[in-house]
Amino acid sequence: MTDTPPLAAGPLLREINAPSDLKLLAPEQLPVLAEEIRDFLVDRVSRTGGHLGPNLGVVELTLALHRVFDSPTDRIVFDTGHQAYVHKIVSGRREHFDTLRREDGLSGYPSRSESDHDVVENSHASTALSYADGLVRGFALRGQPHRRVIAVVGDGALSGGMCWEALNNIGAAPGQPVIVVLNDNGRSYAPTTGALGRHLTALRKAASADAVDGESQDTANLFTALGLAYIGPVDGHDVPAVEAALRRAAALGGPVLVHCVTRKGRGYLPAERHEADCMHAVGVIDRVSGIALQSSGPSWTSVFGEEIVRIAAERADIVAITAAMVHPTGLHDFARAYPDRVFDVGIAEQHAVTSAAGLALAGLHPVVALYSTFVGRAFDQLLMDVALHRLPVTFVLDRAGITGPDGSSHHGMWDLALLAVVPGLAIAVPRDPARLRELLRDATANKSGPTVLRFPKSAAGPDISALDHVDGLDVLGITHDAEVLLVGLGPTARACVDAAAVLGEQGIGVTVVDPRWAAPLNPWLPELASAHRLTVTVEDNIGTGGFGSRLAHQLAQGGNPTRLRTIALPHRFLPHGTRADLLRNCGLDAATIVRTVLRHLDADSTATAASRRRSAPPHAAAQN
Amino acid sequence: MTDTPPLAAGPLLREINAPSDLKLLAPEQLPVLAEEIRDFLVDRVSRTGGHLGPNLGVVELTLALHRVFDSPTDRIVFDTGHQAYVHKIVSGRREHFDTLRREDGLSGYPSRSESDHDVVENSHASTALSYADGLVRGFALRGQPHRRVIAVVGDGALSGGMCWEALNNIGAAPGQPVIVVLNDNGRSYAPTTGALGRHLTALRKAASADAVDGESQDTANLFTALGLAYIGPVDGHDVPAVEAALRRAAALGGPVLVHCVTRKGRGYLPAERHEADCMHAVGVIDRVSGIALQSSGPSWTSVFGEEIVRIAAERADIVAITAAMVHPTGLHDFARAYPDRVFDVGIAEQHAVTSAAGLALAGLHPVVALYSTFVGRAFDQLLMDVALHRLPVTFVLDRAGITGPDGSSHHGMWDLALLAVVPGLAIAVPRDPARLRELLRDATANKSGPTVLRFPKSAAGPDISALDHVDGLDVLGITHDAEVLLVGLGPTARACVDAAAVLGEQGIGVTVVDPRWAAPLNPWLPELASAHRLTVTVEDNIGTGGFGSRLAHQLAQGGNPTRLRTIALPHRFLPHGTRADLLRNCGLDAATIVRTVLRHLDADSTATAASRRRSAPPHAAAQN
Repeated sequence: MTDTPPLAAGPLLREINAPSDLKLLAPEQLPVLAEEIRDFLVDRVSRTGGHLGPNLGVVELTLALHRVFDSPTDRIVFDTGHQAYVHKIVSGRREHFDTLRREDGLSGYPSRSESDHDVVENSHASTALSYADGLVRGFALRGQPHRRVIAVVGDGALSGGMCWEALNNIGAAPGQPVIVVLNDNGRSYAPTTGALGRHLTALRKAASADAVDGESQDTANLFTALGLAYIGPVDGHDVPAVEAALRRAAALGGPVLVHCVTRKGRGYLPAERHEADCMHAVGVIDRVSGIALQSSGPSWTSVFGEEIVRIAAERADIVAITAAMVHPTGLHDFARAYPDRVFDVGIAEQHAVTSAAGLALAGLHPVVALYSTFVGRAFDQLLMDVALHRLPVTFVLDRAGITGPDGSSHHGMWDLALLAVVPGLAIAVPRDPARLRELLRDATANKSGPTVLRFPKSAAGPDISALDHVDGLDVLGITHDAEVLLVGLGPTARACVDAAAVLGEQGIGVTVVDPRWAAPLNPWLPELASAHRLTVTVEDNIGTGGFGSRLAHQLAQGGNPTRLRTIALPHRFLPHGTRADLLRNCGLDAATIVRTVLRHLDADSTATAASRRRSAPPHAAAQN
Repeated sequence: MTDTPPLAAGPLLREINAPSDLKLLAPEQLPVLAEEIRDFLVDRVSRTGGHLGPNLGVVELTLALHRVFDSPTDRIVFDTGHQAYVHKIVSGRREHFDTLRREDGLSGYPSRSESDHDVVENSHASTALSYADGLVRGFALRGQPHRRVIAVVGDGALSGGMCWEALNNIGAAPGQPVIVVLNDNGRSYAPTTGALGRHLTALRKAASADAVDGESQDTANLFTALGLAYIGPVDGHDVPAVEAALRRAAALGGPVLVHCVTRKGRGYLPAERHEADCMHAVGVIDRVSGIALQSSGPSWTSVFGEEIVRIAAERADIVAITAAMVHPTGLHDFARAYPDRVFDVGIAEQHAVTSAAGLALAGLHPVVALYSTFVGRAFDQLLMDVALHRLPVTFVLDRAGITGPDGSSHHGMWDLALLAVVPGLAIAVPRDPARLRELLRDATANKSGPTVLRFPKSAAGPDISALDHVDGLDVLGITHDAEVLLVGLGPTARACVDAAAVLGEQGIGVTVVDPRWAAPLNPWLPELASAHRLTVTVEDNIGTGGFGSRLAHQLAQGGNPTRLRTIALPHRFLPHGTRADLLRNCGLDAATIVRTVLRHLDADSTATAASRRRSAPPHAAAQN
C-alpha cells in the first residue's frame, strides 16, 4: 500500500454524478475531463489493483457513448466488463473507487445491484452482441422500439465464436438497430492474433490511404458482407469524432458497426510501454513508475511455466495452446524457447480444445492452458471432441477455486463438478509445487486419454511432504488408532494438516491424506474411510457434484455405513474479496475443519463429547 | 418393415471396395455409379431409417473427394457425420448397411473402430475446421507436410461459432494447407437462416452474373477477407468440376475454401419435395413414396409443441428460440401461429442462450428449445449469462437420456449432472404428458430464475396418475408399512411402478414417488428415505453427479444412515441401439429394479431373505 493521500478528483470530474451531466459539457471541456479521469483512474487503481490498461483506452469512447445515448433507457452492454471503470466513474460511483474489488466494495465489473446503468455483470468475453440482439428484438416486441442498444466489444473478444453467431443473426435483421461499437486497440491481453486482426488492420490502412488519395479504396469488408453497415475507422480518442460516428450509426435504424481505434493504456506511460499486455490488470503499484509494490512467493502459474519448458525440452511432441493468454497462463517461456510449438488461438476456447484434438490425432501431446472459469465454454468440445476419442490432451486450469477480487464470473469453483461428468477424464489436483511438477509429468505421460490439472491463483507456498504413500494416496499425517480421516484435496491439504495438529492436542487421533487425483476416485478411499469413525473431505469447489459428493455416492453404492461430511464452497455465486477471506468465509480453513470434526464426533457419541466440549471452540453453522 | 427383398448393389458399385477403386473409373462411369449409390442409399435407409437427405446430396462430392485425395494418408473430416454414408459405402462398408444404426451394427456416423478412413466420430456440428487446423499444424510439426487435410462442412454448420474461431486461425496461417469444402445446399435442417446464408446466395448470384456478363462481379467475399483463397461456386453434382476445383485447391498449398453447391435430397423425389427438411432423417419408410411405415403414439415433442402454443396464446411475453431445429423440437405450430415470436438462430447454441438472456432482460419470457446433447455447447452461457443474472428463461431439452440409434454423441445422458452445477437452476423431469404440460406451465411462470425441462425421444405413453401429492412429491404407489422407497425420476417412474407390483406380490411393501423436480432436491425426500429400510433411485442419466448421487450426498451431510442405491446410466460413452434395448442393457427396467431391491434387502437382513430368495428372479450384477 502506498502512503500518499488519494488524489482529489479534478474540478470537472467532481461535477459528473450521472451520465446526463456529461451532456452539459462544451466540447472543449472534454479533453480536460478525459485527463482528469485518467489521473483519477491511475491514482485509484494503483492503490487497489484492478484493470488499468483497458480502461485508460476507453475514456473518450465512454464519454461519447454517454453523450449520444440515454442510459438506462438506451442500453449500453460492455463486453468483458473490465472496460467499464470509466462508465462507473461517470454514473455516480466515483466516490467508491477506494473500495474497488474489496469485500463489500465496488465490483471490478458492471453490477446490477450497483446501478441501473449496468446491464450485464458477466465478464466472460464475446457475449455482448448476443445480449444486444436479444434486447433489441425484445424491445421491438414490447413496443419500445425507441430504446437503442449498444454493444461495446473489443477486437480481442471479436474472435470468440459467439460474436460470429450473433453477427449472423444481427446482420440478417435489417430493421433491428443493434449498434456494435468495436473498440479496436489491436489486442486482447496480448496483440490480437488471427485473420480478423489482419482484416481490421487492412480496414485501417485502407482508410489512411483514402485520406491520402482522396478516393475510396476497395477493401472487402467482413461486416458489410454480413449485412451490417460499417462506419469508421474513427479515432477513439477524439470525442467529437466518435460522437459524430455514433449519431450517424443511430440514425441508420439498422444493424451497424462503428470501428473505433483506441490505444490500450493510453495516457499513462508505464502502461503504454508495457509490452506483455499494456498493464491489462495490475496489483497495487507505484503510481509514478507503475512498479508492483506487493509481491508474494512464486505462483502456481510460474511453477507450471517452468516445468512445462523442461518437459518440452525433453519431448518434441509436447505443444501448447492458449486462448489469448500466453503470459497469464505462464506459457511465455515455452513460447520464447519453442515459438513454433505454442499456439495462441485468440479468445476462442472451443477452437482451443478441438484444435488440440486435431493436434493429438496428428500424434502430438497438446497442453491446453486455460483459466478454470473459461473451461465451461468448451465443455462439449472436451466431452465429444477429446474424451469420446480418448485423445491424450492435458488441460491445465489456472485460477481454479476461489480467485478473489474478480468476483463471481471468475471464481473457478465449478470445474471439479463439471469435469467429473466427462467419462475417462483424469483430474489431478496438486497440493504444492512438487506435486504440480509431478502430476504435470503424469498428465503429459498419459497416452490413453485426457487429463486435467487444476490449481488456484495464489502463491504456491512451500511443499508439504508425505509421510507415506499408500495405494496412490499421500499420507500427510497419521496417529495411532485414528478415529477421524481428513481428505484434503489439493491446496486444502494444508488446512487439513493444521486442523489435525489442533485435534491432536485435544486427544483426537487423525489421519490426513491427499488423494492427488479427484477423478477417478481412488478405489482405496472408501475402504480407508470405513476404517475411521468420521471422514471429512475438503475441496476448493462447489460441494454439489464435487469430490466429496462423489465419495458419498460411492460409499452409498458400496453399502458402506461410513459417516462422511464434505466441506466445500456453497452452491451459489460468490462475490469478490481476497482469496483468503473468501475461503475463510466459506469454511475452507483449519478452524472450520476442527469445528466440523468436533461437532460430528459429538453428535455421534454424546458421552465422550461432553468432556471434549469444554475445551473445544464454539460450534459454527454447518458447512456444505 | 418392408417385405420386399433388398435391392442388389449395381454392377459398378459392386466393384468399389475401397476409395482407391474409385480412381480406376472413367469419368463417364461416374454418373452411373452415382445413380447406383442413390438407389442403394434409398433402398437401405428406407429399411433401417437414418439420415437420407444429407447423403443424397453429397454423392458426387464424396466421389470427387476420394478420387482427388488419398485417404487415409490425407485426412477427410466430415463435419456433422451424418453426411458420411456415401463415404462409408465406398470405403468397404457397403455390405453392412442392413445393420445401420442397429445394436452392434454400422454406426450412423464415422467410427474409428469401423475404418481407418474415419477420423472423427463426433457428430456435433461446426467442429471440423478446428480439427483440420490442428491436424495440419500437427502434420507440419511431425514432418509430414505432404498429408492433406480436408474439412467438409455444410453451410448450416458454418453458422456455429467454432467455425469462426477456426477460420480466424486457419486464415492467419498462409503456409498451412487446410482445404475447406463448403457443402452449400442452402439449409441445415430447414433452410439456412442468417446473414451468412444471404452472403452465400450473393456469391452464387455473382457467379451466375459473371457467366452471363463474361466479366467478374465485385462481390465482397467473407472468406478472402479472412485470408483464405476462394474457389467456386462449383456445381457439387458435377464430379469432374468438383475434382478440378479440389485439384486447384490442393495445388495452392495454403488455406482455401471450395464452395460447392448441392441439393439436399437430390435424386429422390419424396426428399426433394419434402419442405420441412428434405427428409433429413427418417424412420422406416416406403421406398417409393417415402411415407413413414412405423408410427408410435404421440411423442414428448408433440405434447410440448401443443402446450407451448396454448401458453403462447395466453401470454404475449412468451417467445421461443431454436438452433436450426424449429421442426425437430416441436416449435413449428408456434412459429406458424406467431411467426414474429419464434427465432431460429441457426446452429448457434451459445447465441441461442445469451440472446435469450437479452430477451429476458427486455421483459420477455424466452423458451429455448434444444436437444439435450447440445446444451453442453452453451453451459457457460447458461451459467454466466442466464443463471448469474437470475433471468426467467425456460430451457426445453428434447432427446434427454438414451436417444437410441444416433449413438454416443447424441445420447442426452449428461444434462442432469451437468446442469445441477448451475446455482438457482430448477430442473423439471416430467414422467408423462400431463406432467409435461403442468411442469412447462410451472417453468414459464417462474419469474425468479431459469428452469430446465427435459424429456426423451420416444412416445410419451399414457399418463400415470398420482395417488397422492405430499410436499411436492407425487406418490404413485404406497403399501402399509412399506420397507422400500422407489424414487422414479421422469419416465423411469413407470418402471418403478411395475417393479413395485412385482415386489408387492412377493410381500415386500413399496412406496413409489416421482419427485417431478431433479433440482432443487425435494427437502422432504431425505426424511422420507430415512423412514424406509432401503431407498432406490432411478434416472435416465449418468449416475455420477446425477439425481441419486445428490441425494446420497444430502443424506451423508444430514448424518442420515439411510441405505440408498442409485440406478442410472453407466459412466461411459454408450453405443447406438434402440432406446428400449439400451435402457434394459443399462438396468433401467423393472426387472433390474426388482433384483436390486431383493439383493440389498437380502444383504441387509439375511434371515428374512432366505425365504424370499426361493421365489425371486436370479440376482444380477450391481448397477450404477
